[in-house]
Amino acid sequence: MLDIVLLGSGGGMPMPHRFLSSLLINYKGRKILVDCGEGTQVSMRMVKWGFKSIDLICITHGHGDHILGLPGLLATIGNSGRTEPITIIGPEGIENIINGLRVAVPYLPYGINIIESPKKLLGISVLLKGMEVREIIHEDFINKDMVISTLELDHSLPCIGYSLYIPRRPKFYVEKAIFNQVPRELWKRLQNGETIIYKGRTYDPSMVLGDKRKGIKLSYITDTRPINTIPDFIKGSDLFICEGTYGDNRDLKKAIKNKHMTFAEAAKLAYEGNVKKLLLTHFSPVLDEPEIYIKNAEDIFMNTIVGYDRFTKTLSFSC
Amino acid sequence: MLDIVLLGSGGGMPMPHRFLSSLLINYKGRKILVDCGEGTQVSMRMVKWGFKSIDLICITHGHGDHILGLPGLLATIGNSGRTEPITIIGPEGIENIINGLRVAVPYLPYGINIIESPKKLLGISVLLKGMEVREIIHEDFINKDMVISTLELDHSLPCIGYSLYIPRRPKFYVEKAIFNQVPRELWKRLQNGETIIYKGRTYDPSMVLGDKRKGIKLSYITDTRPINTIPDFIKGSDLFICEGTYGDNRDLKKAIKNKHMTFAEAAKLAYEGNVKKLLLTHFSPVLDEPEIYIKNAEDIFMNTIVGYDRFTKTLSFSC
Repeated sequence: MLDIVLLGSGGGMPMPHRFLSSLLINYKGRKILVDCGEGTQVSMRMVKWGFKSIDLICITHGHGDHILGLPGLLATIGNSGRTEPITIIGPEGIENIINGLRVAVPYLPYGINIIESPKKLLGISVLLKGMEVREIIHEDFINKDMVISTLELDHSLPCIGYSLYIPRRPKFYVEKAIFNQVPRELWKRLQNGETIIYKGRTYDPSMVLGDKRKGIKLSYITDTRPINTIPDFIKGSDLFICEGTYGDNRDLKKAIKNKHMTFAEAAKLAYEGNVKKLLLTHFSPVLDEPEIYIKNAEDIFMNTIVGYDRFTKTLSFSC
Repeated sequence: MLDIVLLGSGGGMPMPHRFLSSLLINYKGRKILVDCGEGTQVSMRMVKWGFKSIDLICITHGHGDHILGLPGLLATIGNSGRTEPITIIGPEGIENIINGLRVAVPYLPYGINIIESPKKLLGISVLLKGMEVREIIHEDFINKDMVISTLELDHSLPCIGYSLYIPRRPKFYVEKAIFNQVPRELWKRLQNGETIIYKGRTYDPSMVLGDKRKGIKLSYITDTRPINTIPDFIKGSDLFICEGTYGDNRDLKKAIKNKHMTFAEAAKLAYEGNVKKLLLTHFSPVLDEPEIYIKNAEDIFMNTIVGYDRFTKTLSFSC
């Protein structure tokens, strides 16, 4: 189970009625933040999910509306009493940007690990007071609490999209283990995905487990033009959070010029990616009432929500 | 006449109900901003005084709660269509901090002039689309629209206070000019403070002008311990804006440790500086209702206002 809250739904500039696009994710009591524009910590304070348990921060790119809230947030996390390190993931160049911004908050009571432009999958293990983030190969994903993958997007500077996947282990069948004459002392290890040679015989997980089960997938794509690698990247997401900077189809030229998307373009990606639900965000400051343009998305992908600040949702394993 | 609005009244962290301490000043339609913590631009948008006409930004020091809103604001000013340069004044080290923060907003459509730790008075001339800021000697102040002086404060890093003075010229007396047989073609120049030798005779301004008149003085002191240079610096201010991080007198130890002030300490400075009015600001995030401590200031200096976000006031020349 995964709880998310859209801390802000705006793009460009923070507004009195709309914070900048940012997503807070709660998994097993630990938190992941995606993007952090100016004012993000204020919205975070409103939702009262706490600051101390933020273990991982994913930054899409170095534009101010996605990162200028970071130094202040890092200071506030420091004030919350955190001493465990935080991991920050971002595109090429992110370390330089973070180091620049930290000029106003040089001293923090915890360390920061920066992962710049990851080329492999990142496996997340939830610890008692933090998260361990490691590059993994695909076959390892089942033993991780979460797997994060990234995709290079098409914006005016290096920008990456994120996909978070919570694997769901196959069901354990006692009757199958007994039928296959698997010694009881191996059950737990096999359930954990290990293959074991024991007393001359090879045991593999399929001898105690049922069929593969779909996990929970959440994707976050902003800022970018629609590109043909996105549908595959977001494939089957339970929730696809996507920028829709412009609601009106007539703003397509602006979207192309500024390397953003219209609602309709985001909806087309949702359709092609066969996701369950689309949540639009990152509305242009001039888009006062984005919801009036929902039909432009629904005509292409029905299950669309026009995001708003502090929209909250729980994602669960399918039955 | 000078209009001011306290954009925020908080210290430390931006809160849902309280922005960080920042002051916006409107003089002849041009704007000066003092300090710019995270979220300042949101409060600025609420008051609708505009972004394009901000000509001068005065920063007290490099702590996040006073400067982290700067890069976002500079970007927003850029979006407003401004092309005229902006001057930023700050303490020692400010240039380095600004250059660091600008990593997320490297391109702006206007130039930035930085004045670090000014040692002289700064004379301000209001232009049609900006302000000219120049170091001046004291005798020149009467010909400037405004004069800014700074004072080194006692905080945990270089920090300066600001005093803004709008000089008021002595009244021009036609009868005095005629009585002193001043040729009419010299009146204007004498009124502007010039001493002129004309046809062998020396004319000085006192031949056409009345007595000196008090201008408008505004002082801004945060963050600091009370130090003995402050009363003289703020002397006779029409409005003295001062940090009162702690309301409760029992928080004096915290104030000493963190290099801040209590309400009572700020009030003592107001009393010693013989100011007209004290406006308290920069309240600690834990100070939920600062106004309940007003008596701690009023017992020492009666004319105290406990600041709040978007408190507005007009300062005029005395009659």
